[in-house]
Amino acid sequence: MLKDFVKAELPVEEELKAKLKEERAHLFASQMKIKEAGLPVMVLFEGWNAAGKGAVIGKVIRNIDPRFFKVATMDRQPSDEEKRYPFLYRFIKEIPEAGKFRFFDTCWMEEVVDDVLDEKLTEEVYKKRVHSINVIERQLCDNGYLVIKFFFHISKKEQKKRLEALQASKYTSWRVDKDDLLQNKHYDKCLEVFERYLGDTNQSRAPWYIIDATDKKQAELQVLQFLNQGIDVALQNQKTNVPILQNTFPMEKVGKLSDIPLEGKHLSDEEYDAELDRLQKELKDLGNKVYRKKIPVIIAYEGWDAAGKGGNIKRITEALDPRDYVVEPIASPEPHEKARHYLWRFWTRLPKTGHITIFDRTWYGRVMVERLEGFCSENDWQRAYNEINEFEKELCDWGAVIIKFWVQIDKDTQLERFNDRQNTPEKQWKITDEDWRNREKWDLYEGAIDEMIAKTSTTFAPWYVLESVDKKYARIKALKIVIEKLKEALE
Amino acid sequence: MLKDFVKAELPVEEELKAKLKEERAHLFASQMKIKEAGLPVMVLFEGWNAAGKGAVIGKVIRNIDPRFFKVATMDRQPSDEEKRYPFLYRFIKEIPEAGKFRFFDTCWMEEVVDDVLDEKLTEEVYKKRVHSINVIERQLCDNGYLVIKFFFHISKKEQKKRLEALQASKYTSWRVDKDDLLQNKHYDKCLEVFERYLGDTNQSRAPWYIIDATDKKQAELQVLQFLNQGIDVALQNQKTNVPILQNTFPMEKVGKLSDIPLEGKHLSDEEYDAELDRLQKELKDLGNKVYRKKIPVIIAYEGWDAAGKGGNIKRITEALDPRDYVVEPIASPEPHEKARHYLWRFWTRLPKTGHITIFDRTWYGRVMVERLEGFCSENDWQRAYNEINEFEKELCDWGAVIIKFWVQIDKDTQLERFNDRQNTPEKQWKITDEDWRNREKWDLYEGAIDEMIAKTSTTFAPWYVLESVDKKYARIKALKIVIEKLKEALE
Repeated sequence: MLKDFVKAELPVEEELKAKLKEERAHLFASQMKIKEAGLPVMVLFEGWNAAGKGAVIGKVIRNIDPRFFKVATMDRQPSDEEKRYPFLYRFIKEIPEAGKFRFFDTCWMEEVVDDVLDEKLTEEVYKKRVHSINVIERQLCDNGYLVIKFFFHISKKEQKKRLEALQASKYTSWRVDKDDLLQNKHYDKCLEVFERYLGDTNQSRAPWYIIDATDKKQAELQVLQFLNQGIDVALQNQKTNVPILQNTFPMEKVGKLSDIPLEGKHLSDEEYDAELDRLQKELKDLGNKVYRKKIPVIIAYEGWDAAGKGGNIKRITEALDPRDYVVEPIASPEPHEKARHYLWRFWTRLPKTGHITIFDRTWYGRVMVERLEGFCSENDWQRAYNEINEFEKELCDWGAVIIKFWVQIDKDTQLERFNDRQNTPEKQWKITDEDWRNREKWDLYEGAIDEMIAKTSTTFAPWYVLESVDKKYARIKALKIVIEKLKEALE
Repeated sequence: MLKDFVKAELPVEEELKAKLKEERAHLFASQMKIKEAGLPVMVLFEGWNAAGKGAVIGKVIRNIDPRFFKVATMDRQPSDEEKRYPFLYRFIKEIPEAGKFRFFDTCWMEEVVDDVLDEKLTEEVYKKRVHSINVIERQLCDNGYLVIKFFFHISKKEQKKRLEALQASKYTSWRVDKDDLLQNKHYDKCLEVFERYLGDTNQSRAPWYIIDATDKKQAELQVLQFLNQGIDVALQNQKTNVPILQNTFPMEKVGKLSDIPLEGKHLSDEEYDAELDRLQKELKDLGNKVYRKKIPVIIAYEGWDAAGKGGNIKRITEALDPRDYVVEPIASPEPHEKARHYLWRFWTRLPKTGHITIFDRTWYGRVMVERLEGFCSENDWQRAYNEINEFEKELCDWGAVIIKFWVQIDKDTQLERFNDRQNTPEKQWKITDEDWRNREKWDLYEGAIDEMIAKTSTTFAPWYVLESVDKKYARIKALKIVIEKLKEALE
């Protein structure tokens, strides 16, 4: 893309001036349209050092009200803290919310190409990163984001000239560092690496725009033109559904909920106490090992209301060091969460390496409550099975252990427990009108859950059903599964 | 994808039998759904030689009525005739029509990987081919096709065993050729090339399915499962719009039709006769050169009714050797054309190298008459600008000269000519009620044409407006442009 880059014929003088004025006014007018349409706009600036990315960002944002944009200036490399999260984490944290612009002064490209040039990435890891980037960019587009990618291109000679000019003044010489000089020295090698990355990530939904950055005004004009054009197309696409993708993940065959026998799954108090004690000791030991081996662990709980999730989770956490785990109770999303990709609030709640996060309800809300209550469109939840599989695959490739529990009871057991809650003053806070309303939709939920389990039981993150008519049985089963999975990961 | 391929746990014995029965019945039931929904299904079988592609195709089609499928057995390499067309041509010719299956016993992958292994492709041409394949597969999906891609995988040892078994019998030994043996000998090198191709063409909309083909029944089961699953998803996607892509082609700025002055664009009879004679002689000479240099030429005419397209085309063809050119008058599509990707009838009418095809009306019908008369959906014609640019880029990269003329008159001139046709008995066949109806929609058409010209005037295939109030002027201008373009191509 860079090697065969043909410079566009650019306007000069008066024509340039007139066009800049026109495009600036266009962007100014677009900001309210974006606001009204709730379009999130993510603009990635990448390119050669000293190509003038920052200067153009500075020009572009002059046309936008400060309430509607933010500039995310990303460090070239993650901090030590950020290194304990998946590669994409520090970037995903920064994605814009609906109706706003976020300008990235370098994004995931810079880290990848830097690592390639520093010979820190094997071919395999490079390919995995490129794949992760392509998946997340596609997911963002599918979820209504406009993703615009600019690469600022200048020649070796031009770069050298600029670096020398910066060095010559005592006011700007600090802006030139060793990396800048190295990049200029090894320009051709960098060109190869950039060229490959641009080709590998040039997606039809999120294509690259190569900006001829030799002249700053011309660069600004090109950016404004592509940005304005991109916004118009994105606004036009806003209500368009997205085709559902074919599943390509290896799946485990799991039966329907109604086929799972619940009777006979019972433990006596003595059996339970003995097992609980033994297993919690074992888990405690494993928890320490996982911490020292820096393995991240994600335990996801879903289940019927009153199925016994809370008590089940408690038996796990009792065995763990409080410094090493966190329980994340998931309720309906806050406005700032609803304004972003629905997985954002889970991305930002991931454990760091060596830590355990237990989600009390999860991202699967998308294909259960959000589906059935109409909080998202049909296209949204139908797409979500694959998006969730992609999300979990990303975490699994990062090295995380993912354990997904469905806590299962029958309808009669739920009624008993609801009545008990209703009739016991100190339990009344646990039962709401919503619980009763949900109960009326039991059959609809059961259909959705069967579909969810069938479509997201991948071999790398399968569902485990905890039969919880006897809560003791379910707790012991959960402990055993967690222990087994941690042992596997520690091998 | 092959190197890290993990064999799925496959069912055996009774379970295999039961599952095969179930999937076969599913496919049998799907054929009528496909028919009713008008879904075109394109299934690509690629893989190692002797992996059993043919045998599985034979099994799969047993479940489908012969009226609903065809098997396209593609030669590994194009014939000498096919070599005179773009790389994709011989495959695109074979795409299925709506409601039918087409099984490809090898498709574009085989030619590409063969050429790589024979060292016939530069890195640049390889990348271009991969790009062409990704574009056409995406276009097919966007236009409602189900594209399913299988790669039949066997180990080196298994392949050797099979080839030896085939060679051992006089009834089958003819099936083993030099290429098969070479592939087995250089298995690891082939693996590298296959691996790269699979990665390069693994698109989210048309992903690869790797089939573990060690056991034939297991291979059949996997193919049936993925095919059935693919059909279900495609049926679900049928009425889904597709997001409009951002434009990434370099554009020429062309003004609106109403800004083009028509007055003063006039030639006297003497000027005309002299110019015509001189230019036609020059074109004749260039036509011969183009023929000998094997350059394909595509001249596309669009314009208002009665603008003078026919007479203009005649002045071009008069100068050409009738063996070297063909005029393709484009009317509304026939049923078998309407049942395929709308560009199919143009792909199949392309000139071969050294020949000239003049299209009297073109693929631009999609964004004019089909748009305005509602013959396609809004999403269809909005997508078409980019699809057409991609189509023309493909032809341009192949080496074709593309010249697009818009023959322009004003509304009054059209009325004069319509009346003249109406009142002159020997011209009456040229005027129909439809012409009058179209005339009433002049302003709508003008808007659509302005949008068309703005969105498809790429630098590699720009529009030329022929001012045709004076037909003589328009003819001379067309001749000059054709001459200029051919000269450029011959340089």
